[in-house]
Amino acid sequence: MRLAELSERSGVPTATIKYYLRERLLAPGRRISATHAEYGEEHLRRLRLVRALIQVGGIPVAAARDVLAAVDDDSLDHHMRLGAAVWAIPHGPDPDEDDPVTEAARRTADALLEQLDWGFGRELGAQSPPYRMLVAAIATMDGLGYPCDVAHLLPYARSAAELAVTDLDLVERYEQEEEQVEAAVALTVLYEPVLLSLRRLAQAEESHRRFG
Amino acid sequence: MRLAELSERSGVPTATIKYYLRERLLAPGRRISATHAEYGEEHLRRLRLVRALIQVGGIPVAAARDVLAAVDDDSLDHHMRLGAAVWAIPHGPDPDEDDPVTEAARRTADALLEQLDWGFGRELGAQSPPYRMLVAAIATMDGLGYPCDVAHLLPYARSAAELAVTDLDLVERYEQEEEQVEAAVALTVLYEPVLLSLRRLAQAEESHRRFG
Repeated sequence: MRLAELSERSGVPTATIKYYLRERLLAPGRRISATHAEYGEEHLRRLRLVRALIQVGGIPVAAARDVLAAVDDDSLDHHMRLGAAVWAIPHGPDPDEDDPVTEAARRTADALLEQLDWGFGRELGAQSPPYRMLVAAIATMDGLGYPCDVAHLLPYARSAAELAVTDLDLVERYEQEEEQVEAAVALTVLYEPVLLSLRRLAQAEESHRRFG
Repeated sequence: MRLAELSERSGVPTATIKYYLRERLLAPGRRISATHAEYGEEHLRRLRLVRALIQVGGIPVAAARDVLAAVDDDSLDHHMRLGAAVWAIPHGPDPDEDDPVTEAARRTADALLEQLDWGFGRELGAQSPPYRMLVAAIATMDGLGYPCDVAHLLPYARSAAELAVTDLDLVERYEQEEEQVEAAVALTVLYEPVLLSLRRLAQAEESHRRFG
């Protein structure tokens, strides 16, 4: 398809697509004349992913390029590529290494992973970005004096495990491995606002049930 | 307690506390001399909440002031005050009203609430900020061509309902109604990064189980 059709089918303005091409977030089309290039379904898919990262995830262009590099890294096997691509999505600040509160938060996170028997997470530990994100979140709550020990965290972790099953079921509906990796990244980002809004709606429902 | 003790117990620097006082995010202490004021436990609690909103939630000062006004609004009964305070927490952009994609997303959201039998949410509809947040999130996914119909959303909503039970159990551990409202706001904000990091950790675990 031509640029105009790519724009129409994706809902992304042509000027934005040209910007993504210049920023190497989108591979160039197949050149068919001095002024025209031809784009394929893979461009459409990639454009949707870029849009999800930048528009919904609010991810800076340079960080989005890192995520896409991980998506395209075919030196990894499928499982590792899936993990690496999702982990390349930026998250909050890393925990403050020298802080005793961080040390305590790390012990809480480790005890939680042990209790859940999340062996993969325990094996990788602080190498894994979501582990560091969790430690930082626990340290912040501890520092502010809000409850965040293993007993408090367990029910959240159990719900997260259910969410992950739902997430991976969705990812597995895509047939090709390349599509699965793209979908894992897009759905991780896109379902975050869905999940947070549903939690606030459910809180209102539960609060109405208890106090209403 | 004096300002120095308030700073030490809260972990918030005195300069920051003075800034919060100037910005009316914190009520003035009881003046005991020309240069000194005395602060109570309610200041310590409020300071933790302000810190949660601004530091973790990344909420601008003016918006934090709106949330605190809702927390302090004793014209509402407990249930309504709890809901109003949590709903005053800023969220993503509202859906684009005139867009046919938004119209379709609203129908999806309504069908979801009906299937869940969330009567409170159905009654309030678009008056409720998390409903508008959900509609915007669905519209974005639809617009990008990612799956987001009722069948896809239901398992996320079911997990959200479990999370809300956990959230409200935590809130109910606080004895006074005032403390419950403050805790509801703080825990809504503070558990978001906890939840999102646990989801990414659980995804890695589930992915390892399926593809590893």
